[in-house]
Amino acid sequence: MSDDHSLTVPRPLVGIIGFGAFGRLMARHLRPHFRLRAYDPAPPVEADADLADVALAPLQDVAACPVVILAMPLSRLEETVRAIGPHLSEGALVLDVGSVKMKAAEIMAAGLPDHAEIIATHPLFGPASAAGGIRGLKIALCPVRGRRSARVAAFLRKGLGLRVVMTTPEAHDAETAMAQGLTHLIAKVLVQMEPLPTRMTTKSFDLLKQAIDMVRNDAPEVFQAIECLNPYSPRIRKRFLDIAATLDQDLGPS
Amino acid sequence: MSDDHSLTVPRPLVGIIGFGAFGRLMARHLRPHFRLRAYDPAPPVEADADLADVALAPLQDVAACPVVILAMPLSRLEETVRAIGPHLSEGALVLDVGSVKMKAAEIMAAGLPDHAEIIATHPLFGPASAAGGIRGLKIALCPVRGRRSARVAAFLRKGLGLRVVMTTPEAHDAETAMAQGLTHLIAKVLVQMEPLPTRMTTKSFDLLKQAIDMVRNDAPEVFQAIECLNPYSPRIRKRFLDIAATLDQDLGPS
Repeated sequence: MSDDHSLTVPRPLVGIIGFGAFGRLMARHLRPHFRLRAYDPAPPVEADADLADVALAPLQDVAACPVVILAMPLSRLEETVRAIGPHLSEGALVLDVGSVKMKAAEIMAAGLPDHAEIIATHPLFGPASAAGGIRGLKIALCPVRGRRSARVAAFLRKGLGLRVVMTTPEAHDAETAMAQGLTHLIAKVLVQMEPLPTRMTTKSFDLLKQAIDMVRNDAPEVFQAIECLNPYSPRIRKRFLDIAATLDQDLGPS
Repeated sequence: MSDDHSLTVPRPLVGIIGFGAFGRLMARHLRPHFRLRAYDPAPPVEADADLADVALAPLQDVAACPVVILAMPLSRLEETVRAIGPHLSEGALVLDVGSVKMKAAEIMAAGLPDHAEIIATHPLFGPASAAGGIRGLKIALCPVRGRRSARVAAFLRKGLGLRVVMTTPEAHDAETAMAQGLTHLIAKVLVQMEPLPTRMTTKSFDLLKQAIDMVRNDAPEVFQAIECLNPYSPRIRKRFLDIAATLDQDLGPS
């Protein structure tokens, strides 16, 4: 009677390692469902008011949560995996959220202790595209080790309203090399060509600018990972450049 | 009493020369306001039911309307201007609707008789982007000869709900070389790379695909005019390709 909460099951504990823009976006959507602990080597100076209930904690305490989400650049994944290994609780579920899946799955499978279950994920959105909420947005799920993928997928669908694409790291990288590799390349080029016209624009150009605006503030590491650490990206980029150069040539000299 | 219509002013007569996809789109939006006559060297075999009241007529009859709109590829504009000249009524207003304005204004100013007034226009939309109606879409207006631009602009705003951008052929071509030149180039490349992914896509990639879909069915002449007959396009294209190639190089070997 004096403590109603003792009658309810406490929300499960989830640890977020890497509390940058994406880590905080996740925290906002996970906090109604879980108690959250977060670790970042350089935590944000100004705390977000709506994340006041997320406990910033030392790495080993966050790594000890039954579910651990890794949200750092892929270039830092290997050292992080090494650092958390000894602190993981028995049978912990570890997930990453990076844009490239073959490399991430390989690092986690090789570096995490055998008792840990692993799911490589790629939420196909970021702070800009999720500004209006995440319902209806997509997330790719690649089961790597263990049997909890179906349960995680069910939560993502029912709890968060996401559209879950079950896939493999290879199929993911092959498909996103085009979807993300091209979008980010085109965006980087157009940003360098700014100022872009605003007055005499067509609907199609306005859509192109909207597409750019969704990725222009992504961290440089995201671009680097998509273009360099996805093994399919370089050849997709080459195809794009070759076709564009041929078209330009066919159009005649300037 | 026997003929109520004799009491009302008949709607003004407008001639459309070139009755292709864009000519017919125009006719759909102009027919509530004008009586329309149209000419096409190869008129569509199946008439559109909603355009049954548009009178298909010989070139000289359509050219004799007080307002004449030229809606053929830029590559056919010069011969058309030559052909209609002798049939224009005194003080006729001639407008074109092509994607490139310096060349079109030059051809019309040089080839149309002195008594004809001229406005070069560019509706910044096509059948695909206007599928949901044209209210709120943009049209560029370049006065070339005569004093009727303000009146035409007022009709386009109030009668059709368009956003009118008053400009010069030079300013138009400089700005659209980027807006249209880049969109059409990118679209042409991506269409050649199809099939594009549909499953693991981000919001920004979906926007990119929407942009492509708006121009993919444009006539080849539209691409040709935008890329080759706009004098600013080749250098914009070169800049795009140079920046993309540099980025690709900086990302390292594939």
